[in-house]
Amino acid sequence: MTDSFSAALERSAALEARIESAPGELRMLTGDRPTGALHVGHYFGSIRNRLRLQEAGVEILQLIADYQVITDREVAGDIRGNVRNLLLDNLAAGLDPERCTIFTHSAVPALNQLLLPFLSLVSVAELQRNPTVKDEAASAGITSINGLMLTYPVHQAADILFCKATVVPVGKDQLPHIEQTRVVARRFNDKYGVTFPEPGALLSEATHVLGTDGTKMSKSKGNVIELRMSADETAKKLKGAKTDSDRHITYDPEHRPEVANLLTIAAMCEGGDPAVIAEEIGDGGGGGLKKRVTEAVNTYFAPLRERRAALAEDLAFVDGVLRRGNERANEIADATLAEVREAMGMSYP
Amino acid sequence: MTDSFSAALERSAALEARIESAPGELRMLTGDRPTGALHVGHYFGSIRNRLRLQEAGVEILQLIADYQVITDREVAGDIRGNVRNLLLDNLAAGLDPERCTIFTHSAVPALNQLLLPFLSLVSVAELQRNPTVKDEAASAGITSINGLMLTYPVHQAADILFCKATVVPVGKDQLPHIEQTRVVARRFNDKYGVTFPEPGALLSEATHVLGTDGTKMSKSKGNVIELRMSADETAKKLKGAKTDSDRHITYDPEHRPEVANLLTIAAMCEGGDPAVIAEEIGDGGGGGLKKRVTEAVNTYFAPLRERRAALAEDLAFVDGVLRRGNERANEIADATLAEVREAMGMSYP
Repeated sequence: MTDSFSAALERSAALEARIESAPGELRMLTGDRPTGALHVGHYFGSIRNRLRLQEAGVEILQLIADYQVITDREVAGDIRGNVRNLLLDNLAAGLDPERCTIFTHSAVPALNQLLLPFLSLVSVAELQRNPTVKDEAASAGITSINGLMLTYPVHQAADILFCKATVVPVGKDQLPHIEQTRVVARRFNDKYGVTFPEPGALLSEATHVLGTDGTKMSKSKGNVIELRMSADETAKKLKGAKTDSDRHITYDPEHRPEVANLLTIAAMCEGGDPAVIAEEIGDGGGGGLKKRVTEAVNTYFAPLRERRAALAEDLAFVDGVLRRGNERANEIADATLAEVREAMGMSYP
Repeated sequence: MTDSFSAALERSAALEARIESAPGELRMLTGDRPTGALHVGHYFGSIRNRLRLQEAGVEILQLIADYQVITDREVAGDIRGNVRNLLLDNLAAGLDPERCTIFTHSAVPALNQLLLPFLSLVSVAELQRNPTVKDEAASAGITSINGLMLTYPVHQAADILFCKATVVPVGKDQLPHIEQTRVVARRFNDKYGVTFPEPGALLSEATHVLGTDGTKMSKSKGNVIELRMSADETAKKLKGAKTDSDRHITYDPEHRPEVANLLTIAAMCEGGDPAVIAEEIGDGGGGGLKKRVTEAVNTYFAPLRERRAALAEDLAFVDGVLRRGNERANEIADATLAEVREAMGMSYP
């Protein structure tokens, strides 16, 4: 990767400015893996940003990355059920299917075909150097990397370039993938003529929403507040949250990380300041804190949960959203593939 | 690869028996790279076998592997022109478009999509061990292997499995690819339920037709007799062929390889025996040998060349053959992909 982090930061800031000044010129590609229902961490980490860009007027392509589930999981689980949960969560959160294309990897062959020409532009040595692939394999406890995992950054380039996305919201750790996509676009353009814009990473502010035990939210750890939970389930989950023995609540992320995390969740939901909330709770202790954060979460997500319940009663509509999204993604992918084949001299009478 | 060469030989013999007894149950996948017009080496090495299976009643899917051209060539050349030449050569040779599906890689997205699930079934270590990839890279003088080259055996698995081919004619050096395809089919079937038959390699007898200089036919060496050449061009090309200073012609492949090669070509065209032809030429020398082989080639290929010239006057027909072939290949690929998505739990309402 030749681009430095500071260059990426600058591009991100420039994109933010264009979101203000010319949102209609931008197209955003974003995605979720269908590994389970979305939780509060996903919401504040990415869904909220997604909604912000939608409101600003940026076109959104929302990928449900079903093929990523098989990159690093032996048993992929109930993909169909997980895809439906993602649809329900995103629609309930406010993603507007009239303005946004929601689609799955596996339903868009022309997108996937782009992996082939793109793979010819990337050396195996480059693929093996990708730090994100290494980290993800390591964190999944995988020792034998499979072919799909190794080529995943190039497949992600296909995800982004098939629709000529200009904005891709990512965390810092995903930057190498965006850089790889920029490299693929550049090499294709150099070799076959200008076809793809180089997308920019929209770096999100880090939101430190952790699980109820103060560690990263993860379904397997049971520390997750899912968006779809009822108010009672949320209360129960938060009742089991980890705090500490000091009854005087303070916002001290360094020394009291679990307490600070609960304060952060409350602050995000209330739109307030965690230190102020801490003062208000004062000597209320863990019980007072949990009561406050439970109320905050249940109040904030009540409308979303209500919409989700209504949508769950109308699965024909939900399934139709995906069907139309896949149709639209196929139209876009077919057009791009036709252009790519023409550029490569592979279109026949 | 767990299968031994002798097992592959046995399977090949069993396939030959089935070609005799039940050709209608077999489907053959075969292919050409669009790197130039076909030559006499291609004809006796593979086209003739293709025609034999067609006559026997085996269904043929004939791939024009346009994506393979970008695996290992920096500049792919005039792919469109080369594809048309392949069509002309194959049709002129006798491939019957009513019984055979001729198609290009780049036009069949659902075939290419199969690369993704298949890549998840193969480890990077396995890909790196593939001896054919190593050899091909080495013989092309390539030091930096790109992603498409590394994954090429898995893409070839997609070529074969998309149409559930049962017969794949190959030389011994291509056996590792077929073994890789069998492994992919087996792993997919084990993991997701039986979906693919394991194809068998049909090992062709080695045909030692070399170029006019006694080395492997290669366009860049100018030692090639193309099928499309006129009788005069053939005579001229053979006039420049390498022989030796011994005017007495004998069939001695070990000590007189160039002379033996010309005798072999004559024998293949005449359907005779190279040693007998050598005796008949006797003291005729290089000149007599070249005269004989020129007549043999021009006589044998005259009908093909006539048909080719006629086809070249009717390009609308030729292009239509490819268009219909691509349509049919897409129908087959779409059906297989639907089955694969269903098996993987990735079909949505």
